[in-house]
Amino acid sequence: MSDSGSVPVFNFADRLAAAIKAKNNPSVAGLDPRIEYVPAHLIEKARKASISGDKRKWQAEAVLSFNKGLIDALYDIVPAVKLQIAFYELLGCEGMEVFRETAIYASQKQMLVIADAKRGDIGSTAEAYAQAFLSPGGPFEADALTVNPYFGCDGIKPFIDACAKNGKGIFILVKTSNKSSIEFQDIETSDRSSGRTRPLYELVAEKVREWGNSQGLAGSCGYNSIGAVVGATYPAQAVALREVMPRAFILVPGYGAQGGTAADAACSFGSGGAGAIVNASRSIMCACMTQGWKDKFGGDMVKAGLRYADAAREEALRMKEDLNSALISR
Amino acid sequence: MSDSGSVPVFNFADRLAAAIKAKNNPSVAGLDPRIEYVPAHLIEKARKASISGDKRKWQAEAVLSFNKGLIDALYDIVPAVKLQIAFYELLGCEGMEVFRETAIYASQKQMLVIADAKRGDIGSTAEAYAQAFLSPGGPFEADALTVNPYFGCDGIKPFIDACAKNGKGIFILVKTSNKSSIEFQDIETSDRSSGRTRPLYELVAEKVREWGNSQGLAGSCGYNSIGAVVGATYPAQAVALREVMPRAFILVPGYGAQGGTAADAACSFGSGGAGAIVNASRSIMCACMTQGWKDKFGGDMVKAGLRYADAAREEALRMKEDLNSALISR
Repeated sequence: MSDSGSVPVFNFADRLAAAIKAKNNPSVAGLDPRIEYVPAHLIEKARKASISGDKRKWQAEAVLSFNKGLIDALYDIVPAVKLQIAFYELLGCEGMEVFRETAIYASQKQMLVIADAKRGDIGSTAEAYAQAFLSPGGPFEADALTVNPYFGCDGIKPFIDACAKNGKGIFILVKTSNKSSIEFQDIETSDRSSGRTRPLYELVAEKVREWGNSQGLAGSCGYNSIGAVVGATYPAQAVALREVMPRAFILVPGYGAQGGTAADAACSFGSGGAGAIVNASRSIMCACMTQGWKDKFGGDMVKAGLRYADAAREEALRMKEDLNSALISR
Repeated sequence: MSDSGSVPVFNFADRLAAAIKAKNNPSVAGLDPRIEYVPAHLIEKARKASISGDKRKWQAEAVLSFNKGLIDALYDIVPAVKLQIAFYELLGCEGMEVFRETAIYASQKQMLVIADAKRGDIGSTAEAYAQAFLSPGGPFEADALTVNPYFGCDGIKPFIDACAKNGKGIFILVKTSNKSSIEFQDIETSDRSSGRTRPLYELVAEKVREWGNSQGLAGSCGYNSIGAVVGATYPAQAVALREVMPRAFILVPGYGAQGGTAADAACSFGSGGAGAIVNASRSIMCACMTQGWKDKFGGDMVKAGLRYADAAREEALRMKEDLNSALISR
């Protein structure tokens, strides 16, 4: 709610751009909670409080507490969270409930929520996914969803329609951060009519640009709601892709634990250091496990873990400075 | 359990081949239960029995009854079910519980279960998916999982490892049944060193063949547990792909409602009419909604729906004959 009584912003790209600007922080905290990331005291508390003794249930409870603690520590400095659904599915139906509750909790704290589920299927199935993730009141409603392009446009259209109708966004996989993304994504494709060759990821990027020009998606921030995933681990490709998709919001994984630097991540930004958001998961979630943090507590991992939220905040602030410095020095 | 006291078959390809042979039926029933497919009497019953009145809960209950009715009607004639997870997610956590219970119920009735979730991500995330879907005791354990290849081999390896370790299978998207699969999957790729060009789906198929040769995956049936998805809607491509992947079990969507014929589907089979399994979802689930079935009940849709399981069985038997005729006449 705005104090000035103005209408809430509808367009996803505009909402994301505004949140980044307000916090002066183009980063997203990945909440990909493996159970081994959860500090001992939260595990212990959930286990003891468990009535049923059902392991999956108390593990889910522990993860939810962990997530809420992270959100509480980050919401005033980080504009968005990204939930990797695999780690919630791994905890079964209870885990999916944690996914849902985490998304709601983050929204209440004014963070944007990206569901990292990499969905993709034929049109009728994609429609069901769009209903579940990108519709008001959908069971796993988020602000945006990551999407796999392999099915082509009829598998993407239901997501695009949902974005336009509901003020949501998608990030389509273009060039992923992993090593073997070269295997198919970098394959040289040839256009018989023009004789031109280019890598597959560039072709996908052209489609992302085309899809982003569909009606009802352009934000007044200069970007639109059909975004792309481009890994920080491929800076040269990111520079080229930024040119192919000048209006696409880019979600940048691969910073930190996967090896991408702030300078690498900066390659996905547009003019004025806008139009992209960089994800970090492990480095924030597991900040209390670093040697530096543990040293503050005489190497005591349990004591260090009690302050996991402070450690996460410290790392998020460090990342923010790191990214902003890289963006200024471009 | 075998009467002869022999060791249960471990390899997924062998289990699937044996089940197809035992029922003389190379088809899989897709359980993709949109709520509008569920007959009125089941909806009404679940709604009335609902204590909480929570719509998502009684809808989930109705879907579970529907699925169990279908499984009861089919298990002695159809070797496998394929659960499209999108339609379960759409019903929220309750829907995911229905997914789980349906998978367990089908297994108890000796049907193989294919989780149609088209998962794909970087290695560490793919590992979590493999744990959830392809590990004994995993929350959404199935016999096989559909997988998206866009991330390349490091995103596929955790699934391959789980298949070898746990006697499970995967079906990798090679050439999907939808119209716009041509957009990226058919793109001509060029090999700089050899100068050879070929469509992307063929390149993916070569990788599927390579991955299928990994240790611990070969079945004694002549096929291995790293399968492929090839749509019945592209018979010419299916012929070529069968040659590229002579040992891959092929899952064939697109028969029936999507327009593929039995002769089209037959193109994905290997010698002796083995090595493939054809999916039908809507035509079986919604068999009681056809004009022919409704006519038996004077056009009364509610009465026709009361016998939905019989209609499904009739259609499954028709499909079996249709496929077997097409395989014989090749």
